[in-house]
Amino acid sequence: MTEVKAYAAKTSDSEMVPFKLDRRDVTANDVKIDIEFCGVCHSDLHQVRNDWKNSVYPVVPGHEIIGRITEIGANVTKFKVGQLVGVGCMVDSCQKCSACKDDMEQFCENGATFTYNGADKHLGGHTFGGYSEQVVVDKEFVLSVPENLDPRAAAPLLCAGITTYSPLKHWNVKKGDKVGVIGLGGLGHMGIKFAHAMGAHVVMITTSPSKSGDAKKLGADEVLISKEEEQMKKHAGSFDFLLNTIPVGHDMNPYVNLLKRDATMVLVGAIEPLDPLHGGSLVMGRKRIAGSLIGGIKETQEMLDFCGEHNVVSDIEMIDMQNINEAFDRLVKSDVKYRFVIDMKSLKNS
Amino acid sequence: MTEVKAYAAKTSDSEMVPFKLDRRDVTANDVKIDIEFCGVCHSDLHQVRNDWKNSVYPVVPGHEIIGRITEIGANVTKFKVGQLVGVGCMVDSCQKCSACKDDMEQFCENGATFTYNGADKHLGGHTFGGYSEQVVVDKEFVLSVPENLDPRAAAPLLCAGITTYSPLKHWNVKKGDKVGVIGLGGLGHMGIKFAHAMGAHVVMITTSPSKSGDAKKLGADEVLISKEEEQMKKHAGSFDFLLNTIPVGHDMNPYVNLLKRDATMVLVGAIEPLDPLHGGSLVMGRKRIAGSLIGGIKETQEMLDFCGEHNVVSDIEMIDMQNINEAFDRLVKSDVKYRFVIDMKSLKNS
Repeated sequence: MTEVKAYAAKTSDSEMVPFKLDRRDVTANDVKIDIEFCGVCHSDLHQVRNDWKNSVYPVVPGHEIIGRITEIGANVTKFKVGQLVGVGCMVDSCQKCSACKDDMEQFCENGATFTYNGADKHLGGHTFGGYSEQVVVDKEFVLSVPENLDPRAAAPLLCAGITTYSPLKHWNVKKGDKVGVIGLGGLGHMGIKFAHAMGAHVVMITTSPSKSGDAKKLGADEVLISKEEEQMKKHAGSFDFLLNTIPVGHDMNPYVNLLKRDATMVLVGAIEPLDPLHGGSLVMGRKRIAGSLIGGIKETQEMLDFCGEHNVVSDIEMIDMQNINEAFDRLVKSDVKYRFVIDMKSLKNS
Repeated sequence: MTEVKAYAAKTSDSEMVPFKLDRRDVTANDVKIDIEFCGVCHSDLHQVRNDWKNSVYPVVPGHEIIGRITEIGANVTKFKVGQLVGVGCMVDSCQKCSACKDDMEQFCENGATFTYNGADKHLGGHTFGGYSEQVVVDKEFVLSVPENLDPRAAAPLLCAGITTYSPLKHWNVKKGDKVGVIGLGGLGHMGIKFAHAMGAHVVMITTSPSKSGDAKKLGADEVLISKEEEQMKKHAGSFDFLLNTIPVGHDMNPYVNLLKRDATMVLVGAIEPLDPLHGGSLVMGRKRIAGSLIGGIKETQEMLDFCGEHNVVSDIEMIDMQNINEAFDRLVKSDVKYRFVIDMKSLKNS
């Protein structure tokens, strides 16, 4: 085992503080990664503050990890030392159930091991995430990152990227489709970029007229202000697909009304109770609502390759590890365009 | 025009009473039908009582019409006088929009003409339904009824039948699929029969243990009592498809929990606000909820042919037209197995 520097929350109401944790020695199937950058996902904050009532302390968050390989196990053939790689929300799964066999490890029937706050199969206790110097991960959960991408801006692809890419691909968004992205935050800004790169006619749907300029810079063809009834009427029944990134419970009915016959709205943000949905709004037009959770490892690699090809990365603001508490405070106020990324040199040099 | 006998509600709080209405003369595209049987749908009662706030009085309900052709227009080639035919929920549509071109006239972008309480394009005013001696309908909205079916028990196929057949077909229910039918009423009993005839393993999902015997007679392989938590746990994550026929707002979460990864629950009954749905229940397992409304004319004919082939009809209780008020009262108490059908001879002879 190796002791490495990290940042952790020790209780649900404590600030993030320096912490030391043990990483396992590299086994035959493992890859050891020197973490260079780690994105700050809203889930990190939810776990730190125990919003989902399942946190185990100390919490070391971070599942948007970019780094370089420093050591590989005997069975590792597809990676080499020095390679730029990423680790997302999962570090292990059973690899045997039907979900794993279908390349959807996020739905592993025996429970995927999440990158932090999951049960650690090797050392016991729980897993620690990317707000640390190093990580040791099973080779099946390591992603290859195209060298042409800015590695700092690539970090958020590992969660925000795959979370938005996966439903757009699964519901077959294609050139010319009219796609609405609801909500402009960490997820929404990636949704716009991907839908645009897939050739869709992208409409940013937001409550805030002030976000129009940014949305267009990110690739939106139009901006629809959801509080303007006339605008909503004009767009009624016209969308081939809606990616709903609103992170809290809300009224889905006005958005369902925007869908074409047989079209789908996919939720990727709200995991809490939503306002009452009118059955009739689905019945009229045979409309659909679905959920989507990150994506499997194979699809995450496909997403990274797509990003390499289309030069898609996140819009980021770099911070030092020592500024994480301030970054969390700003995150709560949605005061970030559009993802904080921690420069892990700041931790190593501390 | 021909004056014909009918039964109507003159106001939202009046009983059904004898009424006389005019049917148009047969035009080149029309088929005139002598109505023999008419099913009693719960929508009939909703319209009579103005539950949906869109009723126009007098209301002559009835959209599960079976009869024989007595006259055809010059352009009618696919029907002949004396033929057994049916008319369902629609009697016209624009025939030009993308929904009509896709054989989904129920979603006609210019508004399908519903069989009763719709805008009558020929005579002005509103349409009158099947609680009458005769009806004159555009040939494109007349269905051929297989002669091997009991015409009385075939009447409810025109609404309850297509409403349940369409989603089972559209979501590709096939031999061996585990299909749950939620709610055992007019729609639910047809859902069981169709899913069984399609070769599915059919589970009747109900709050009432007393319905078990009937469900099995109708073709259910298993009965799941939704109030029994242990049973619900046992079936969690195991259904390929759920047909939800509950006619009122309810909590969908326990049912969504029964779906397999990527599986769909389709609402065909509830058109009002539903209890708050947990976003997380869709996100975990990429599950889907959709709505479905009757079916198009082409699909309705396909359904009738399927019924002829598989000998599928409704379980019915025959009534005379004069007993419709009592039947409505019993309908409110779900005291019917499973559909009232009016013998229209009782009206003719009155």
